[in-house]
Amino acid sequence: MSSQRRSSADPRQDEYRILHEADLRDYLAGIPEVAVRLGGAPASWSISEVGDGNLNLVFIVKGGAGGVAVKQALPYVRLVGESWPLPLSRSHYEYLALTHQARLAPGLVPAVLHHNEALALVVMELLEPHIIMRKGLVAGTLYPRFAGDITTFLARTLFFSSDLAVTAAHKKEGIAAFAGNHALCKITEDLIFTDPYRVAEQNHWTEPWLDATAAAFREDLDLHAAISRLKLKFMASPEALIHGDLHTGSIMVTDSATMVIDPEFAFYGPMGFDLGAVIANLLMAYLASAGHERSPGERRLFEAWVLETIEDVWTEFASEFLELWRTEGHGDAYPRTLFPGEAGAAHLEAERQAYMARLFRDTVGFSAAKIIRRILGLAHNIDFELIEDPKRRAISEARSLRLARAMMVDAASFPTIGAVTKAAREARDWQPDFAK
Amino acid sequence: MSSQRRSSADPRQDEYRILHEADLRDYLAGIPEVAVRLGGAPASWSISEVGDGNLNLVFIVKGGAGGVAVKQALPYVRLVGESWPLPLSRSHYEYLALTHQARLAPGLVPAVLHHNEALALVVMELLEPHIIMRKGLVAGTLYPRFAGDITTFLARTLFFSSDLAVTAAHKKEGIAAFAGNHALCKITEDLIFTDPYRVAEQNHWTEPWLDATAAAFREDLDLHAAISRLKLKFMASPEALIHGDLHTGSIMVTDSATMVIDPEFAFYGPMGFDLGAVIANLLMAYLASAGHERSPGERRLFEAWVLETIEDVWTEFASEFLELWRTEGHGDAYPRTLFPGEAGAAHLEAERQAYMARLFRDTVGFSAAKIIRRILGLAHNIDFELIEDPKRRAISEARSLRLARAMMVDAASFPTIGAVTKAAREARDWQPDFAK
Repeated sequence: MSSQRRSSADPRQDEYRILHEADLRDYLAGIPEVAVRLGGAPASWSISEVGDGNLNLVFIVKGGAGGVAVKQALPYVRLVGESWPLPLSRSHYEYLALTHQARLAPGLVPAVLHHNEALALVVMELLEPHIIMRKGLVAGTLYPRFAGDITTFLARTLFFSSDLAVTAAHKKEGIAAFAGNHALCKITEDLIFTDPYRVAEQNHWTEPWLDATAAAFREDLDLHAAISRLKLKFMASPEALIHGDLHTGSIMVTDSATMVIDPEFAFYGPMGFDLGAVIANLLMAYLASAGHERSPGERRLFEAWVLETIEDVWTEFASEFLELWRTEGHGDAYPRTLFPGEAGAAHLEAERQAYMARLFRDTVGFSAAKIIRRILGLAHNIDFELIEDPKRRAISEARSLRLARAMMVDAASFPTIGAVTKAAREARDWQPDFAK
Repeated sequence: MSSQRRSSADPRQDEYRILHEADLRDYLAGIPEVAVRLGGAPASWSISEVGDGNLNLVFIVKGGAGGVAVKQALPYVRLVGESWPLPLSRSHYEYLALTHQARLAPGLVPAVLHHNEALALVVMELLEPHIIMRKGLVAGTLYPRFAGDITTFLARTLFFSSDLAVTAAHKKEGIAAFAGNHALCKITEDLIFTDPYRVAEQNHWTEPWLDATAAAFREDLDLHAAISRLKLKFMASPEALIHGDLHTGSIMVTDSATMVIDPEFAFYGPMGFDLGAVIANLLMAYLASAGHERSPGERRLFEAWVLETIEDVWTEFASEFLELWRTEGHGDAYPRTLFPGEAGAAHLEAERQAYMARLFRDTVGFSAAKIIRRILGLAHNIDFELIEDPKRRAISEARSLRLARAMMVDAASFPTIGAVTKAAREARDWQPDFAK
């Protein structure tokens, strides 16, 4: 992989500018391994800007031999515009995180072909014929590989950056290396952990049906205490290098493959935030599903698969994480030497189980936070947005909010993932007053 | 305050070398504000090396007008020698921490007059007629100002570096600024959280009386699980910029003044570690006291004062910390805007009380860890070491170990600081088998 290879030959490359099509074509032509991968004359390459995320430019470039994806950070939030500046350095952190993930979860993240820090630009392999998983879920597609792949990604990237796997010195160096990504963390702190619970200009929801719930959430002090505890945990629990934005729009899939993209929110944070993101987005896919039915019960198989997948995500993650701890737990935490013999092994195993129970509680709480922000906050998702009839959409959203509130405030009622899926099933059958 | 002022004039200053007396005299003569403070001709200054700590050189320099203290880090652990290297950068972190503390707790840390990073050297005001608090405690001296001063130091340095007072971005920058001090953290991780619980060459204890307890602690798996949970908390809970070594040997006192010195172990860690250090060392002063009696009951007044001080340390800390939170809680955690009106204030106050209860549990656990390491680990303290009769010493130590084990393993039995002092009183009256 080349890194800023041309910058010394062409000092222009060291100055940030937003790349437009012609400029990008020239730029890529100058990177031999990218040019070879694309094939043919640069003039023949097709270039299209496809970014549908909230922050960046994304180009798909195709040539005679193959394609690449080019992601360039803008100095502001794309969704909002220049009035909301955002540091270009996020591209640096994304590149660092991709490198970490590629080493630990090979084949589950796109290969990086080139990175130019000054241009805030990453060139990656083109994922084809992958689609954004959220789109597939809206369409009712089953992804039988998903649970196995995402749990491998989660267990390995989280475990191997944790105190269970590395020395305290290595961990502190990692934390410091990502500390500068605080502007991205701040987005999460505001948009997930604060704004949905107060009057904020950018909040929106499906009116008028959710007006009463939105108002109730803004006055629900038990909920505010719970979200504040989660916010503090998000800010000050550097357990592992987390992806930081692991919703189903950051996952690309085919029937037989899963790829995690877009780790620009990466930093050392609580593991439960990544786990919660995956589970929250599956719960939303499940509760949105009724809104996409053309006939009652049409998506029953899909919905059963989603619930099963939610259970598998936690269960397989826990199993894989625990197995890594048992076999590769060479970090400074829980030193093996303090747990000798059979009795020692049993005590250490009890500690591991307690650790996982605590991590599960975090996961339930963060999952709830991720649901609420998608319904009452700034950034919504197509699971709900593509339900054309706003009242039907509001019914799915109200069910999700009901479930999420219980998960956040009454965490003790969710001791197992089975309790979560059971509550999700009950929420699916619940009718809000406005639907009666 | 000058900082490396002479380095451009005299490039020799930029190369680390261990300063000996003549060299130091020349060096200090070249720093105008130090020379003025000392007064008279440099040749007339008295210089004596007085370091009785484990790591560094400390010089007291006195001239006609006044004195200074000079602390220089050695590239190894002084207590052990060159076989145990230790980075000079600890002087940089000590300087950073002193600056932070001086800003937040003015008058409770020595003023820094000069710092030379390359020489790993800090020149400070000379604390006179202060003595190391531990020496005063061994002598049975009461320090009525201590609780008030140390709680102000703790509440202010901890609160104002926490998420309750600062933005998440500021906090992450602080964490990163201290991340490089991991070699000092590693000493704590090994000597406090690991070695006393396993066979380690450097461990020692009062033989033969404590042989059985030392062996029992090495096989006590409940204790090993508890110390491992505390170790993980120490490594991965950057709640605030902590002193990191706040025992009574890092505190200098007079009847009417308290000064905290030696923050070279500073990093972003759990607040309970500093609180636990203070309380642990007072508990040891209390339980060692019987060993210093020349006649039974002679030190009863002192002992009552120590227990009262332990209660005051927690109670006044909690009160001061909570008051800061209520009046200056402008950090990103627990945003005021989510807790409006009277009902909001009541909810937020309940969260604050829960936060303090959690912090108290941490304090009890860390306190226990600090006691055990001083009796079974490498570095002991004069509270016990100056008890000449080894059997009497062992009795005080055994009582301390008994108390510490209960505090660490059975934390639920210590819901209040009153429960801790009650248990300390009971431990004072307990006779180990070898004493019967």
